[in-house]
Amino acid sequence: MNQNQAPLYEALLTYEKKKNTSFHVPGHKDGRVFDREGNSYFKPLLAIDGTEVEGLDDLHHPLGAIAEAQQLAAEVFGAEQTFFLVGGSTAGNLAAALTVCSPGDTIIVQRNAHKSLINGLLLAGARPVFISPNIDEETGAAAGISRTHIYEALRRFPTAKSVWITNPNYYGMGEDIRAIAAECHRVGIPLIVDEAHGAHFGQIDIVPASALSSGADLVIQSTHKMLTAMTMASMLHVQGNIVDRRRLASALSMVQSSSPSYPLMASLDLARRHLATEGKVLLRQTVERLKKIKKEIRSKLCTLSIYEKNSSVYSQDPLKWVVTIKHPAVTGYQLLDWFGELGCVAEMADTRNMVLAFSTNTSEEELNHLSKALYTLDQKLQHSTLPADLSQPSYTPMFSQPGTLFQPNISLQEAFYRPKKTIAVAESVGEYSGEMVIPYPPGIPLLIPGERITPEHLLAIEAIKLAGGFFQGASDERVNDIQVLAEIE
Amino acid sequence: MNQNQAPLYEALLTYEKKKNTSFHVPGHKDGRVFDREGNSYFKPLLAIDGTEVEGLDDLHHPLGAIAEAQQLAAEVFGAEQTFFLVGGSTAGNLAAALTVCSPGDTIIVQRNAHKSLINGLLLAGARPVFISPNIDEETGAAAGISRTHIYEALRRFPTAKSVWITNPNYYGMGEDIRAIAAECHRVGIPLIVDEAHGAHFGQIDIVPASALSSGADLVIQSTHKMLTAMTMASMLHVQGNIVDRRRLASALSMVQSSSPSYPLMASLDLARRHLATEGKVLLRQTVERLKKIKKEIRSKLCTLSIYEKNSSVYSQDPLKWVVTIKHPAVTGYQLLDWFGELGCVAEMADTRNMVLAFSTNTSEEELNHLSKALYTLDQKLQHSTLPADLSQPSYTPMFSQPGTLFQPNISLQEAFYRPKKTIAVAESVGEYSGEMVIPYPPGIPLLIPGERITPEHLLAIEAIKLAGGFFQGASDERVNDIQVLAEIE
Repeated sequence: MNQNQAPLYEALLTYEKKKNTSFHVPGHKDGRVFDREGNSYFKPLLAIDGTEVEGLDDLHHPLGAIAEAQQLAAEVFGAEQTFFLVGGSTAGNLAAALTVCSPGDTIIVQRNAHKSLINGLLLAGARPVFISPNIDEETGAAAGISRTHIYEALRRFPTAKSVWITNPNYYGMGEDIRAIAAECHRVGIPLIVDEAHGAHFGQIDIVPASALSSGADLVIQSTHKMLTAMTMASMLHVQGNIVDRRRLASALSMVQSSSPSYPLMASLDLARRHLATEGKVLLRQTVERLKKIKKEIRSKLCTLSIYEKNSSVYSQDPLKWVVTIKHPAVTGYQLLDWFGELGCVAEMADTRNMVLAFSTNTSEEELNHLSKALYTLDQKLQHSTLPADLSQPSYTPMFSQPGTLFQPNISLQEAFYRPKKTIAVAESVGEYSGEMVIPYPPGIPLLIPGERITPEHLLAIEAIKLAGGFFQGASDERVNDIQVLAEIE
Repeated sequence: MNQNQAPLYEALLTYEKKKNTSFHVPGHKDGRVFDREGNSYFKPLLAIDGTEVEGLDDLHHPLGAIAEAQQLAAEVFGAEQTFFLVGGSTAGNLAAALTVCSPGDTIIVQRNAHKSLINGLLLAGARPVFISPNIDEETGAAAGISRTHIYEALRRFPTAKSVWITNPNYYGMGEDIRAIAAECHRVGIPLIVDEAHGAHFGQIDIVPASALSSGADLVIQSTHKMLTAMTMASMLHVQGNIVDRRRLASALSMVQSSSPSYPLMASLDLARRHLATEGKVLLRQTVERLKKIKKEIRSKLCTLSIYEKNSSVYSQDPLKWVVTIKHPAVTGYQLLDWFGELGCVAEMADTRNMVLAFSTNTSEEELNHLSKALYTLDQKLQHSTLPADLSQPSYTPMFSQPGTLFQPNISLQEAFYRPKKTIAVAESVGEYSGEMVIPYPPGIPLLIPGERITPEHLLAIEAIKLAGGFFQGASDERVNDIQVLAEIE
């Protein structure tokens, strides 16, 4: 296949060149009717903000330009079939759940999963068995699942319809998942991998291997995160015959817009072309550049450290840096704010770390800015006059012992639909959560609907609040109150 | 409120002006890493293709610019609260279903509903009672539901949790829904209106009234269709206390991307500003212009006619024209193709009509192009040498007698998850459909999962196929074969 082509993008250019008179949607009529001031930003792209007219194919029934663009993507990412996602990896996770699970089905799921995965299982009426992840000691981050823990889960839950893991995690830490895929296939079930943070994996030999090359059956990638698509544009890849592709297509049609955005889809086509034609070369240069400067910066930092892969994880994405704070009175959230004041915006923070996401083409200039900012922060921390009694919130594990299996008594779906009541968080131990409580980022639910609230949950919520963290999805944004299930005793 | 402001768009401009160094997603880094050729179209907008960094708020937890933009929209559209949708009206329909229905709940639904509404009910595990719509005699189009038919449905299904109608239909035909809203409120349930095609309704006195002003509780509007947002950008409006807004917000977070597109959201902000500041004036001019030229064109056409509201409907959107063909051997699909050859692209066609969608600012020039094209087609049809034996496919009603109530024996959800088998359509009468069969456009399912297949269904499929129509969602794109439920007797 000719990776220099971009069939969907080219179809849109053809559409634009025709300059037909539009008596169809969208109502901005190729950008001719639009807010005047907004035109300077929007006009060029509105000219190709098309819809399902002749020549532009149909995402939900692709036979032309979209089908070709998806095939080119499948080749580059090593899939047998690729589906473009306009609803982000969220849409991919929802559809994956609806494809592999029917109501009541058991599925083995890594506990530190994105909320969209949990929501997919809720919609499908599935009964997940959660496995607690390993914890990286240096950063305190929830990492991957050891294969032995998955073997044990499969042994204890032999009716599981699938294993669903997240690899890499938000911090770029990954596992070797080949043995997990092989074990799934031995028992005849698919391995699903939420590879949202690893769309660049496997593209060159100095980044971790991709989930597909490791044998995964269904893989979801946020092409917009580490590659170059527009935000909310993702891909879902499939290989092998275990996943019912007809049901998958049907589920995707269910959860995605019937008026999908062509600029988003075309940006997937262009992100694939960029990667295939020049991105791999740029990526190699970037990874080498990062390696060199990381060594240099690491040697000069005192109160900050940049994470290096240790024995608790199998791989570390070179495009993600985890900056860990050694100062006792400063949190990752605080560091992120100071970093921002220096004109550098980080990807996310937790109580003790700040995470940076690079691109396939991070420049020397950007890295100079970064090193200066990190040196400045390191100095600031060394001379910090912060009160000594404001001790660093000790790391509070959000999850149980690695490998612990946990299946909520109350199904996700039941918990969603049951009547709820609002009570003080401080008095919620022993109640069943009626909502997701999600520190955001990273968007991994600390509490899921139907999960029984423990003292450890309260400690984790308190630690994140004290450190200045932010919660999403909670009915009370400050998480003083919480929704719990009523009518349970 | 100051409708001249566009708080979300302005927040993105502030974001851009800071020119911070991005160590966060998206990987295109404000457009600095992107396909070279694609830059000419994408670059300006990529500069504001942001994510949830400081100052840009959070769609799933809006407290700043997004909250303000939504409040401004609520004022213009007459809602108490407005939610921006990045997943199209599809996301709004899915979330509405998950908000008003719990598994097993009965809901009264207009049969000619968009597939996303049916999918929402499937995900919610609801048991819809469908009401067959009125049929407009001149065009053969499925129109609205008479209020007496809804009263009857409410009487026969007193446990219904909601009434859900589509108003206007794809052809612009609408009902007076005030009495329906009042009856719903009398029995204490919400009226949901899929107003996807009527985002401009109620904005001036010479377009039909809006669903909100008629008393609807929850309304979904495709802001991209008749107003000026980017494709896939929609809004969901709520008023009153019957709808549980907390559950609604929770359902929206479930079905929408956790990486929502800021350009799409900003285009909603700008579409609202455009409408509030100059759009209403332009809309009035357009409607008056259309009225005048329609009269003129109508008087000159012989084999084509442009629909004028008759007694079978309550209102007709002036921004939609239905061009009906009187020639016995030509279908709407054929007309749409010929229209395209003249440089005019129509919104959609069915067996005997072609539908045109105008904008809030349709120009004289566009209308001149249109009138010339219609005259040319009229001449062509008058002198057509098409074989006389190729008689026009007679109108085959897709639905039963207006007002007929129908509740499938097998629930949508059960049908989705049951094993299926593939058989010839010709041999499928009496079987239960295992899939949606959707003539597209208009995207209204002819068959839904779990619906028993009748000879009338086969006639409708044949008529649409013969006329050159297109199906979406069917496992066999030519609809020679169909998936039906296995293991049913």
